[in-house]
Amino acid sequence: TLQHIFKQIFKVSLELQEDDNRKALLVSRKKHPEDSIVNVKGEKIGDGKQRLIAGPCSVESYEQVSSVAKVLKEQGLKLLRGGAFKPRTSPYDFQGLGLEGLQILKRVADEEDMAVISEIVDPKDIETAVDYIDVIQIGARNMQNFELLKAAGSVDKPVLLKRGLSATIEEFINAAEYIISKGNGNIILCERGIRTYEKATRNTLDISAVPILKQETHLPVVVDVTHSTGRRDLLLPTAKAALAIGADAVMTEVHPDPAVALSDSAQQMDFGQFSKFMGDLRESGLYKL
Amino acid sequence: TLQHIFKQIFKVSLELQEDDNRKALLVSRKKHPEDSIVNVKGEKIGDGKQRLIAGPCSVESYEQVSSVAKVLKEQGLKLLRGGAFKPRTSPYDFQGLGLEGLQILKRVADEEDMAVISEIVDPKDIETAVDYIDVIQIGARNMQNFELLKAAGSVDKPVLLKRGLSATIEEFINAAEYIISKGNGNIILCERGIRTYEKATRNTLDISAVPILKQETHLPVVVDVTHSTGRRDLLLPTAKAALAIGADAVMTEVHPDPAVALSDSAQQMDFGQFSKFMGDLRESGLYKL
Amino acid sequence: TLQHIFKQIFKVSLELQEDDNRKALLVSRKKHPEDSIVNVKGEKIGDGKQRLIAGPCSVESYEQVSSVAKVLKEQGLKLLRGGAFKPRTSPYDFQGLGLEGLQILKRVADEEDMAVISEIVDPKDIETAVDYIDVIQIGARNMQNFELLKAAGSVDKPVLLKRGLSATIEEFINAAEYIISKGNGNIILCERGIRTYEKATRNTLDISAVPILKQETHLPVVVDVTHSTGRRDLLLPTAKAALAIGADAVMTEVHPDPAVALSDSAQQMDFGQFSKFMGDLRESGLYKL
Amino acid sequence: TLQHIFKQIFKVSLELQEDDNRKALLVSRKKHPEDSIVNVKGEKIGDGKQRLIAGPCSVESYEQVSSVAKVLKEQGLKLLRGGAFKPRTSPYDFQGLGLEGLQILKRVADEEDMAVISEIVDPKDIETAVDYIDVIQIGARNMQNFELLKAAGSVDKPVLLKRGLSATIEEFINAAEYIISKGNGNIILCERGIRTYEKATRNTLDISAVPILKQETHLPVVVDVTHSTGRRDLLLPTAKAALAIGADAVMTEVHPDPAVALSDSAQQMDFGQFSKFMGDLRESGLYKL
Repeated sequence: TLQHIFKQIFKVSLELQEDDNRKALLVSRKKHPEDSIVNVKGEKIGDGKQRLIAGPCSVESYEQVSSVAKVLKEQGLKLLRGGAFKPRTSPYDFQGLGLEGLQILKRVADEEDMAVISEIVDPKDIETAVDYIDVIQIGARNMQNFELLKAAGSVDKPVLLKRGLSATIEEFINAAEYIISKGNGNIILCERGIRTYEKATRNTLDISAVPILKQETHLPVVVDVTHSTGRRDLLLPTAKAALAIGADAVMTEVHPDPAVALSDSAQQMDFGQFSKFMGDLRESGLYKL
Repeated sequence: TLQHIFKQIFKVSLELQEDDNRKALLVSRKKHPEDSIVNVKGEKIGDGKQRLIAGPCSVESYEQVSSVAKVLKEQGLKLLRGGAFKPRTSPYDFQGLGLEGLQILKRVADEEDMAVISEIVDPKDIETAVDYIDVIQIGARNMQNFELLKAAGSVDKPVLLKRGLSATIEEFINAAEYIISKGNGNIILCERGIRTYEKATRNTLDISAVPILKQETHLPVVVDVTHSTGRRDLLLPTAKAALAIGADAVMTEVHPDPAVALSDSAQQMDFGQFSKFMGDLRESGLYKL
Repeated sequence: TLQHIFKQIFKVSLELQEDDNRKALLVSRKKHPEDSIVNVKGEKIGDGKQRLIAGPCSVESYEQVSSVAKVLKEQGLKLLRGGAFKPRTSPYDFQGLGLEGLQILKRVADEEDMAVISEIVDPKDIETAVDYIDVIQIGARNMQNFELLKAAGSVDKPVLLKRGLSATIEEFINAAEYIISKGNGNIILCERGIRTYEKATRNTLDISAVPILKQETHLPVVVDVTHSTGRRDLLLPTAKAALAIGADAVMTEVHPDPAVALSDSAQQMDFGQFSKFMGDLRESGLYKL
Repeated sequence: TLQHIFKQIFKVSLELQEDDNRKALLVSRKKHPEDSIVNVKGEKIGDGKQRLIAGPCSVESYEQVSSVAKVLKEQGLKLLRGGAFKPRTSPYDFQGLGLEGLQILKRVADEEDMAVISEIVDPKDIETAVDYIDVIQIGARNMQNFELLKAAGSVDKPVLLKRGLSATIEEFINAAEYIISKGNGNIILCERGIRTYEKATRNTLDISAVPILKQETHLPVVVDVTHSTGRRDLLLPTAKAALAIGADAVMTEVHPDPAVALSDSAQQMDFGQFSKFMGDLRESGLYKL
């Protein structure tokens, strides 16, 4: 009947439109064949040089962040990570210093001339955060917090988007599209391991995601070796694999005294371990900065 | 050395405190041995009677919601679900009618004397939502959107919390604890399938989660058979399994014309299918209302 | 060029043939719309009556098996399971009594007039096994041990085929096809949980697999609640779900003294627990024999 | 009571014994701190040099294998793989040439002075196979086919053991222990991707498994990039990652004309693609032979 035919036409039109939209994703390399370069306070992520990003899991004090920053700087790093808002499984675990943490990060960044990356978890904090940090991180648990993605897409500040705990690559790419669709194309994608049945590692590093993301999108891709593995002894080998496969940067965690860290104590490196990590990475010939 | 000893003491104290907190979860049945009953506009979820919750995936128009509500009411249902804010993988897919959708739900709820359940996705919308709906749904993608959980915990309105796409049962329970820790104990847990390698169904219904959640917590547990399976032909058998295993309610989707639905068209029942579903469920002896 | 064209034709022909073969699976309900009934020493699995299968994880001694059999018989069960060849993760764990175990099973089966189900793990043992047991079980680890499937397909004895640890439903159905393709159509499919990230249960019971397997094939479907959950406290609720969703039988483990069982001690019921399990199941109205 | 006490003692003794056995695994690096080197016709796998293993998925004809072998030899490869017995999901798919395939492999190996690796699927074929091939491969579907492992452990021939589709690293190590416990310590472990929810690749390459296996055991570790990814475009990047992370060899598939291959046509390289693969790998500096 006529009504049924109209419905079918409506349905097909809707599908066609969604299909067209998908093909035309702004993050797609089909749309933009050249590599996008994200300029973070002068560091050009995605320019072909492979960088390291490091810092403590959580911001705990000015002294802690400052001492880490000095160690990173000695090794030539310019990108400092640290969590001020900490999404934790239990409401009774340490939730981060919040705004105070961002202030500490900014003070250290200014003093050491480094750029800082920190996670924001509430859309309403995005506007404030841009005054303190250089890269807004959106964490794995919030990869499909679309309101947060839209808020991050509405400001003029680079965004590091982590892959969700069990997000498909297609969902990950679409999450980035939420950001760029609001106008902000300064996006860095971060593979950080996916949830599988295997329990020898905290997550399973999906190393193949790096070349796939670089083929499908024009965005830089970072590998977080700390959260992928959750094991200090695997940071060096997985960092080598990440650099060899073409990641634009490797992210890892460094803490002055991991044993008393307020979060993730089992997987952060102390200064001696970090120094050895850097030495071994340079010696392998895979890290050249 | 002394400093090291202090650090160890600090560390151990921190762990002990977190441990204690965990044992003392407010949602735990150890803390509160009786079943919690959530009163939704007179419907007492968790009182031992097993209920059905139904409605369209998305609110599309007043006419659509109203026609569904009348059909549900004829079958004795009092709980109507419908999405006004729709978290979608792609930013270009239909995102829901938003506030207008909530207004439609409220109008129909008032006219038909039903209670409405609808998903809220942004912490800032929680305050508004309480004026329109009877149960705030927190969706799977937002199960660890802790800011949203805290906002939902700060109002006096029942919350239906869906299990995350690949959340462990422990993470699910802790997410509920975020809500109750802010003062709101009117929480309904919803198993909606987990992400596995199997592709015959949209997700894998983790039916064992129902008795585990009922053992571990004092909260009512609902099974969403529509999102668990993503297949219309599996709604009836999985609804039977859910009732047999002790779920306090079964949730499913009904649409006047699924073929033209703006979302999830493949898994919603039309009115004829819903009528047959209800008849078969009653005939099985498992559904008694 | 001509050679290329021939290759293309060859390729397409190969695909078409494989496609045709797939459509024409002998286990498919399209090929054989009626339910297949597997006659196990008079018990007609798949005839619409829902049965229970029980017994110890491993055969340990004549006394052990005999005492279990008597308890099952009192409850009206006719189907006794027990492992003689035990596939264990470690080569140093108890590997079963082997042929002696089969002899014990046969003796008890004869004395109590019950039918016995036992796993065979080596193709060369199939011929011997048919003299001792009534149903050849092919275990989860061997679901794609195609040589074993072919051997089981070449004898005239019912086969209970367990789903692989992480087999898709499609692979499961194809494994059954290996058996039937050799001439033996007396196949019972057994859902026993799949491997997922969730650790609250030993495996995740994929309850939806039951109606899917019954739609796609004409074979009877059994649910092994013991291996699905690995938890004694979940045996009753999952058995109810399995019966409600339409399983042809439920399989579980009973041992005179689980604490000293040579395998799977944490998940077997003792006689008192089994008696309560049976009572509760009957009271639920779901088990009618 | 006394009986109960004896049972407890029995139980604890059993556990202690299993524990001891586990600690004392023969494949464990604790037991044997030096790297084991597996000598395959003069190629010393595990000696610190990183090798490539290549060949067609299935042996189809003498001409096919011979042409592939010549191409590999030109590139300096000494290790040729090819399947004679093919475990396939459907019984109606091409099952391999069987013994004829082994004879072809031997003929080519003799002519080109290469070593051949081929999968054996039935314990009874192990004895025959040792006359034709240099390495017995045990495939992913048979990783816990313990009878096959024991048979392979009873001959004096290197074994390449593939990780199961969803085997944990612990299960993988125990499967190797089944082989060595029968006397054969010439074992090569092969990571070949695990089953996850992600569908962008055929499996998910678990790259972290390489350093873990090398830490936990003294055995050489190979990465099969073809089956891990199932995508020709990912062979080069994942091969780089595998070499960078310390794999003793990388295995991949080469076919004279992948489009007409009797299995796995989408993931094999033709000669031109293989030549480019080798060139790019050498240029990266990661492959040095």
